[in-house]
Amino acid sequence: MINKLVKEIKAKNAPIVVGLDPMLSYVPKHILDAKIKEYGENLQAAGEAIWQYNKEIVDATYDLIPAVKPQIAMYEQFGIEGLIAFKKTVDYCKEKGLVVIGDIKRGDIGSTSAAYANGHVGKVTVGNTVCRGFEEDFVTVNPYLGTDGVKPFVDVCKEEGKGIFVLVKTSNPSSGEFQDRLVDGRPLYELVGEKVAQWGEDHMGDEYSYVGAVVGATYPKMGEILRKIMPKTYILVPGYGAQGGKASDLAPYFNEDGLGAIVNSSRGIIAAYKQEKYAQYGEANHADAARAAVEDMIADINGALGK
Amino acid sequence: MINKLVKEIKAKNAPIVVGLDPMLSYVPKHILDAKIKEYGENLQAAGEAIWQYNKEIVDATYDLIPAVKPQIAMYEQFGIEGLIAFKKTVDYCKEKGLVVIGDIKRGDIGSTSAAYANGHVGKVTVGNTVCRGFEEDFVTVNPYLGTDGVKPFVDVCKEEGKGIFVLVKTSNPSSGEFQDRLVDGRPLYELVGEKVAQWGEDHMGDEYSYVGAVVGATYPKMGEILRKIMPKTYILVPGYGAQGGKASDLAPYFNEDGLGAIVNSSRGIIAAYKQEKYAQYGEANHADAARAAVEDMIADINGALGK
Repeated sequence: MINKLVKEIKAKNAPIVVGLDPMLSYVPKHILDAKIKEYGENLQAAGEAIWQYNKEIVDATYDLIPAVKPQIAMYEQFGIEGLIAFKKTVDYCKEKGLVVIGDIKRGDIGSTSAAYANGHVGKVTVGNTVCRGFEEDFVTVNPYLGTDGVKPFVDVCKEEGKGIFVLVKTSNPSSGEFQDRLVDGRPLYELVGEKVAQWGEDHMGDEYSYVGAVVGATYPKMGEILRKIMPKTYILVPGYGAQGGKASDLAPYFNEDGLGAIVNSSRGIIAAYKQEKYAQYGEANHADAARAAVEDMIADINGALGK
Repeated sequence: MINKLVKEIKAKNAPIVVGLDPMLSYVPKHILDAKIKEYGENLQAAGEAIWQYNKEIVDATYDLIPAVKPQIAMYEQFGIEGLIAFKKTVDYCKEKGLVVIGDIKRGDIGSTSAAYANGHVGKVTVGNTVCRGFEEDFVTVNPYLGTDGVKPFVDVCKEEGKGIFVLVKTSNPSSGEFQDRLVDGRPLYELVGEKVAQWGEDHMGDEYSYVGAVVGATYPKMGEILRKIMPKTYILVPGYGAQGGKASDLAPYFNEDGLGAIVNSSRGIIAAYKQEKYAQYGEANHADAARAAVEDMIADINGALGK
């Protein structure tokens, strides 16, 4: 799946991923109103509304982008009905040929991590029948529990030809509180980065490992160091756009081959119609605004990379 | 909700929580076979089987215990159908008067953590109607992203009178890989423990804070230190029994009032019928075996505490 991701990034000349993180406040009124009319003011209406909103965005952008990254929290907030929308979104994006990165940030002790891995990128057996839960292509993983919390994901991914992105340095303001603390004179995120590189050796694709890393766009100097610590690691970079990360800061996350990183934007794309820049599209054409924002983002990043 | 938890622990003289972490391999054959007959070899059969298995265990033990801790990974592995079983389990346990600790180990950047908090211990609004997703009483939270990943949970809990347990020192063998690393001469878990105590000051119950901590039974010396760092923090202690933690090691997790800690056992209770000690119950009476194991666990722990 890392090979497919790299291939699609090259083919579309677009090292970006669209974060499908729907807040109900982003969903155009006409979509939500219609679903409320059909289902009532309940979680089912919310789930159906975010699914339709997502579908319109995917239809308007899938030919431009290699991948999507649905943030499961934004679905989980609506309970079961939200997770049904998550599953529909994952399935639909795969139908459209997109690589799906489930942003689930799971991580637990060994047997429990194995259960998460089976549910999201693997399989379970019921009687004699193999069944699959959410079926993303990649998932994000929290490393706080150490190797035996991460390894089960790697093991399942090896069997399934799938991958993970491990949180190394997150994009949020207080990420430094623990991640930056010095251990033997070096910040914790570097140690985590080294582990990611090690875990990745165990599951290599053609050029890059199936074990990637998450490093926030908001910390470009750390991105530069981590790029060197993890040369074969694909870096998923959140924090571009709405969170403050700029294209001019992104070069250090990439290797000299112009590969090695994929930059996420969520709100900046899916709620583009709410920005002054794309306001002319209006709510009714929110998906066209998303397409325009994708085109601008690709141009912005490729420009900064001198491509 | 921390007040209710403390009250129930006192009333039942049982500082324990039963981990409802159903693996399909624990579910007695007659239960799974019946569900497969009804639904086919699919995820629905799996979900219905673990729900019935849970219900039988809850019916057999609820009068003895203050709380349950369903591990959501064990449900999520079966996709939507598994999560439906999770929701039914949460609802049923609450009906039975039990405090429900959702072991979800979520944690993300601010707005995303808020979505998880809303989905599990809070609410969303659809149109003008307040709706609720999973409705646990407590959830477990991963601190790797720092204060702005944890604070949204605390904020939602303050509004709802609910609580969290933050991972400080987990019970698994490689938990030390990052958690034990020395920062300014002190292990990372101590810094996390200090933060937990701080976060907790913001949301106090009568005797203890609504912000608790997870500290594994497998590391009693660390438990002793953390008890002192977090005097008003309830400690959720996994790792007793199947993972190797012994009752004789548990005293340091408790305060002198005999309170301040709640010890989890999962496999040791719910799959007790598979142990030689409880084999006489057989698969058919698995829930009676679970009850016997709960009685033994309470006696074991109270004995070690001199109660």
